Amino acid sequence: MTIQNDILLRTLRGELCQRPPVWLMRQAGRILPQYRALRAGLSGFKELVSTPTLAAEVTIQPVDELGVDAAILFSDILVVPEAMGLDYEMVEKKGPSFPKVIKTEADIRTLDSGKPAADRLGYVYDAIAETKKGLAGRVPLIGFSGAPWTLLAYMVEGGGSKTFSKARRLLFSNPDLAHQLLDKITETIIAYLQNKVAAGVDAVQVFDSWAGVLSPGLYREFCIPYLKRICESPGDVPLILFAKDAWFAFDELARLPANALGMDWTMDPSWARSVAGPDRVLQGNLDPCTLYASPDTIETAARTMIRSFGQHHIANLGHGVYPDTPLAGVKAFVNTVKNFRYQEIA
Amino acid sequence: MTIQNDILLRTLRGELCQRPPVWLMRQAGRILPQYRALRAGLSGFKELVSTPTLAAEVTIQPVDELGVDAAILFSDILVVPEAMGLDYEMVEKKGPSFPKVIKTEADIRTLDSGKPAADRLGYVYDAIAETKKGLAGRVPLIGFSGAPWTLLAYMVEGGGSKTFSKARRLLFSNPDLAHQLLDKITETIIAYLQNKVAAGVDAVQVFDSWAGVLSPGLYREFCIPYLKRICESPGDVPLILFAKDAWFAFDELARLPANALGMDWTMDPSWARSVAGPDRVLQGNLDPCTLYASPDTIETAARTMIRSFGQHHIANLGHGVYPDTPLAGVKAFVNTVKNFRYQEIA
Repeated sequence: MTIQNDILLRTLRGELCQRPPVWLMRQAGRILPQYRALRAGLSGFKELVSTPTLAAEVTIQPVDELGVDAAILFSDILVVPEAMGLDYEMVEKKGPSFPKVIKTEADIRTLDSGKPAADRLGYVYDAIAETKKGLAGRVPLIGFSGAPWTLLAYMVEGGGSKTFSKARRLLFSNPDLAHQLLDKITETIIAYLQNKVAAGVDAVQVFDSWAGVLSPGLYREFCIPYLKRICESPGDVPLILFAKDAWFAFDELARLPANALGMDWTMDPSWARSVAGPDRVLQGNLDPCTLYASPDTIETAARTMIRSFGQHHIANLGHGVYPDTPLAGVKAFVNTVKNFRYQEIA
Repeated sequence: MTIQNDILLRTLRGELCQRPPVWLMRQAGRILPQYRALRAGLSGFKELVSTPTLAAEVTIQPVDELGVDAAILFSDILVVPEAMGLDYEMVEKKGPSFPKVIKTEADIRTLDSGKPAADRLGYVYDAIAETKKGLAGRVPLIGFSGAPWTLLAYMVEGGGSKTFSKARRLLFSNPDLAHQLLDKITETIIAYLQNKVAAGVDAVQVFDSWAGVLSPGLYREFCIPYLKRICESPGDVPLILFAKDAWFAFDELARLPANALGMDWTMDPSWARSVAGPDRVLQGNLDPCTLYASPDTIETAARTMIRSFGQHHIANLGHGVYPDTPLAGVKAFVNTVKNFRYQEIA
């Protein structure tokens, strides 16, 4: 099916467009009254993730309400560990929790991986098909996965953490075990992304959400090689790689064959340009808290950001939009980007 | 009183010593069996902080047990908000919690500040006097304070947070209010550090623990000017400034008149040297998780770090030592530094 608004895909292919495309990480979620209404009637987050018609509905809501240039499938990065055999619970106001964690080689052996594991996530592929039908080609659909290190971090730590010190400890105390686990996770992510592409996603994003707790040396050893395998595998659709807070590895990330690099809000756009080069497609990176400000302030900040990046840019926040962000702020951001024209800075 | 082991103070003054001095952030704490034994008999963390003889005892424990080159007063950065009128509780396994938070200009008006607030912390100054007596000049004593932004973050957020989005929100939604609060906090920190110096500390460290959640622009506006005031004020003892995760402001921090800059473990020492210059005293930055590894691995990592920094370096971790770190690992680190000689790399 032809995509009517394909500005995101053209930008990802390196085309020069008249403005940056715009979407928001976590745009399908609590910022929308439609989402909150639907969510109120459900037993929990996982019901929403695992029910294709519902996941599709909330995926499409921001396209209708905000006019963003892409949809991103409503899901969670932790469906991959679950498909590998490590169940998680989503605890309200606390976040994910794994009743069982990975500690030994025997634990790793019990995990499924690759295509057999990925094939278990039928509800995700059904949600993709359902969403594509509902979108009817209006905008492209992005599918996503967590990166190997970030998934390992949850599988070893057992939940969220400020420091992920248990997961980092494994890299020092048993690096071989860490590599075994990263290998299995990577195989699963690759199969998962290939299944998603087969089901119809038009682009994929890989989130290395906990990249920032590692040192440059650890990132080089335990992350980059696995990300490289993923970047080289998913096939026919563009891939966006977002390693949050990994400023110290940005030059190495920029050498990977990803189609675009995500950036958090601590990175200055001109610094990123100087590291990644003028032709690299960069995605980001407005501070999500900017959207708490007045529409005028948001417009100024968004325009300053767009000018700093120059072309080959996908406008987004530097992190997922915070759940209590006023809808007016989100709309001010999206509309500012959509009204911008690069000819203003030619 | 003359300090017998003054390698830290000489390094802070820019002297070339035969090895780097070494101490660890959070060295007075749960890594030591002596601390855990003493703590077990107390009602809570705050009893320890506010009882001078006990605070002095745990401050001295790592000097006896580990042979570090400095003591750092056992205390908490949140005694400053408390002295300003904002009580906190330390909730076991959860962290600090403020029953009341700062929301409005009226809230700020009710806060005490400057010398009257700082003078309330008599138990801290008594603990300093007690510690100096116990140390009997063996090593210098470091006093510390949180930085203005980090204290504001707790006072507005009401406790710890991964994102401190409520505190960051204030910077966007009401920058004037944020500046008013930062000004009052800064005045109090300055008076507090001056009181500490008067009570006998030999050096001070300012912790901007939550620097890393800000963007370069916000850091420039809401942090640097206040840190500058603090760097210019404490008087006669050297000041170490540690802005964790503030890589994006490292060049600006390096221009402040601090005697040394702390570094977290995401910063490559050679990168920091290239930004701060060869003569800047830098402190850090081994990944705290390194100390979970074998003594051989720790020795190799510590020696590699020391060589990367070159002279004008204070060996430390890139963050507080984690409470469950094996004592053998901590000792391997300290001993490696103490056995190193710069002539090896001359």
